[in-house]
Amino acid sequence: MIPENAQKVFTGKVFEVWQWEQTLFDGSTATFEKLKRPDTCCVVPVIGDKVVVLKQEQPGVPSFISLPGGRSDFGETPLETAKRELKEETGYIADDWQLWLQRVPEVKIDWTVHTFIARNCSFSNFNYHDGGEKIAAYFLNFEEFLLLADDPLFRNTDVVIELLRMRLDAHRKEQFRQMLFHGE
Amino acid sequence: MIPENAQKVFTGKVFEVWQWEQTLFDGSTATFEKLKRPDTCCVVPVIGDKVVVLKQEQPGVPSFISLPGGRSDFGETPLETAKRELKEETGYIADDWQLWLQRVPEVKIDWTVHTFIARNCSFSNFNYHDGGEKIAAYFLNFEEFLLLADDPLFRNTDVVIELLRMRLDAHRKEQFRQMLFHGE
Repeated sequence: MIPENAQKVFTGKVFEVWQWEQTLFDGSTATFEKLKRPDTCCVVPVIGDKVVVLKQEQPGVPSFISLPGGRSDFGETPLETAKRELKEETGYIADDWQLWLQRVPEVKIDWTVHTFIARNCSFSNFNYHDGGEKIAAYFLNFEEFLLLADDPLFRNTDVVIELLRMRLDAHRKEQFRQMLFHGE
Repeated sequence: MIPENAQKVFTGKVFEVWQWEQTLFDGSTATFEKLKRPDTCCVVPVIGDKVVVLKQEQPGVPSFISLPGGRSDFGETPLETAKRELKEETGYIADDWQLWLQRVPEVKIDWTVHTFIARNCSFSNFNYHDGGEKIAAYFLNFEEFLLLADDPLFRNTDVVIELLRMRLDAHRKEQFRQMLFHGE
């Protein structure tokens, strides 16, 4: 997405800013700008016939509902990030993982969101204390999970779109139910 | 969204980077970072019983389908931006405007997307030449517009979500049809 000849013009805590001279269709040039940020992951954790979602508070932001997840640390693969974030935020581990969605939310940002299914989760331990987050886990059955798309506090856009599509398409819905509870 | 005590640490072509010391729930502090970019607008232009959408090419990006729209220039209101972008990209003007959707796509970016309905459009003139864009307009009837949500080349996330919701809810769909073709 960011071309070879781009220069990094700023490095922040999360974001980098890159610029380059882009040749336009009429032969003229202009300075184009894009951002880079670490990829992020979300996890749909499955336990028995339930899916785990989180109610979160972060400083300076209204409380919201989300799936477990977060940013990749340097050098981490998306799956490693997903496993670490699931453990940190819920205390759960899983050994049956599957990539479900991959999306680039913004054209101007080099940033991919990877959404994983974590089947057969089990509780390991929970000793995470991040002063920057307050998190409570709760459990939804399959139909309740599909209805989460209507909750304005739920902000995983990729998942909202997929849940709405399933509610419009019984075949798609049944495929997803199989993927969550029985593997591919 | 960006607190009073934040400092601007970088000014780019599109993006500004802001940082501040944030007190966490446990009393410790950390440097938080957010971006600011100009708000953007999209327009649903209505002509007779049709909606206008665009097929666009921009340098270095695969071609895509979108509604007319773009970034606010300095000092412009969202409605002024919407009127200017509609005229520039299609040659159409309208005098019956309504704000339909307003959304902040990313928590880490101070940026609002405003989506307007432009009823009773008429052709004015078209003398826009932006070397950075190739644009072709085409016309969809109401049902075709609702199905645009299934086209992977259409990337207006807010509109995709709304179109899917309407397909799930006949009342919502009928309200939107009234809004497009007859006003509130």
